[in-house]
Amino acid sequence: MSLNLNTGSEVRAQCRKGDFTAPTAGQVPGFVQANLVIVPAEFAYDFLLFCQRNPKPCPILEVLDKGSPQTRLIATDADLRTDLPKYRVYESDKIIDEPNNINKYWRDDLVSFLLGCSFTFDRALRENGIPVRHEDEGRNVPMYRTNIPCKSAGVFQGPLVVSMRPMTADFALQASRITGRFPRAHGSPVHLGDPSQIGIGNINRPDYGESVTIHTNEIPVFWACGVTPQAVAVASKIPFLITHSPGHMFVSDWTDNQLEGEEKVR
Amino acid sequence: MSLNLNTGSEVRAQCRKGDFTAPTAGQVPGFVQANLVIVPAEFAYDFLLFCQRNPKPCPILEVLDKGSPQTRLIATDADLRTDLPKYRVYESDKIIDEPNNINKYWRDDLVSFLLGCSFTFDRALRENGIPVRHEDEGRNVPMYRTNIPCKSAGVFQGPLVVSMRPMTADFALQASRITGRFPRAHGSPVHLGDPSQIGIGNINRPDYGESVTIHTNEIPVFWACGVTPQAVAVASKIPFLITHSPGHMFVSDWTDNQLEGEEKVR
Repeated sequence: MSLNLNTGSEVRAQCRKGDFTAPTAGQVPGFVQANLVIVPAEFAYDFLLFCQRNPKPCPILEVLDKGSPQTRLIATDADLRTDLPKYRVYESDKIIDEPNNINKYWRDDLVSFLLGCSFTFDRALRENGIPVRHEDEGRNVPMYRTNIPCKSAGVFQGPLVVSMRPMTADFALQASRITGRFPRAHGSPVHLGDPSQIGIGNINRPDYGESVTIHTNEIPVFWACGVTPQAVAVASKIPFLITHSPGHMFVSDWTDNQLEGEEKVR
Repeated sequence: MSLNLNTGSEVRAQCRKGDFTAPTAGQVPGFVQANLVIVPAEFAYDFLLFCQRNPKPCPILEVLDKGSPQTRLIATDADLRTDLPKYRVYESDKIIDEPNNINKYWRDDLVSFLLGCSFTFDRALRENGIPVRHEDEGRNVPMYRTNIPCKSAGVFQGPLVVSMRPMTADFALQASRITGRFPRAHGSPVHLGDPSQIGIGNINRPDYGESVTIHTNEIPVFWACGVTPQAVAVASKIPFLITHSPGHMFVSDWTDNQLEGEEKVR
């Protein structure tokens, strides 16, 4: 797309008009992007509790009031029904539609969750001189189901999903410190080195995304991944569920710097 | 009390027998203590969302499953019905009882929240050579209602309550760094200096606790306070509510070090 977009607000306006329907990776760098999960109110408490109990894979940026598609914190003038480029609509665990807006699916009992995304820390890694292999190779980040169980909450349970970035031991130590500054973008790694220790059988066969090259002087470094809450929500087979379409994120008004460290009270 | 208690488990066992009914300040230093709020399930989603939206005053350590008084994370073998020294039971906003256990009030629809407490960071301040005035003067920490509104959630709304510790500017800068390491014990300060900027009329007239001496070379430093969620829960006049009695906290198995920084996935 050759649109010249400079802010989250501009991306959202183009989505709303139907003029932007592409993946959001690389759009308006420096603006926080977010995963979207929308559940009926009867499942909202369990899903909120699941996120609260598993903050590394499920860092909550904003929970909207029941029935409201308007964000209050992460963006002004945003409407979650129209402002993402593409959605997935599920009944039980079946995808029934992949539309560019969800106006016709909206209901007064829906509760929307916006969750932090690793784009924030990939940018921080690059800016600190640490190469991000999947970007250099033009691929989607490799992701794996692990044998680490998430802490269950009501109907929601499942394994932790991790993303992997290969790097030298020296970069791994720096990356741990850098990503630790962003607890609301998955924070520091959950594992490094031997994949079998977290139940990954074949590092070259990711469960999601694409494999990337690991050089002989490198180790794989694993971070909690935002696919976890989506995978868990879908696997729970709740009767109705909406998410963003993979890679087609919500682009917020927040800058990456605003995601660093503690939340603010004002 | 002259009991020789060495762990959270020992404090809880003495509470359970009815042999420990005193404030927990200074008991088994280094073990994390927690605020307790118990609400009927119909209010649990709103209260969880209130805490999620206001993490500095309301840092959640654990939310128990509906009807369960047994913790899963913060302590093993703990029973919230018996393991605190003293409780407050409310109907609407009236205290109807202040018992040493809540066995007779327990219901299958109750949801228990354990929230972080400033004892953790007071200890960290002292260990870093920063005097903690209210402790030196043998008083309760001074606390104030501010004009900073919390982010509301359903029936729960109200102003941020802060605690205050006076110190030199140099200590204030160090204290900001030190307490910032503990986001689940209220984290870094929310204000320092002029109290009127956050709606405090008279620094010598705290709304809760007791006033302390402020020397002429010192400034007041303000932290988000765990009284906030309790005050908000009581002010909402929900029909039934149980909290710990002020100062009579839940003593966990976690050590202060486990509260530092990010939460863990395992």
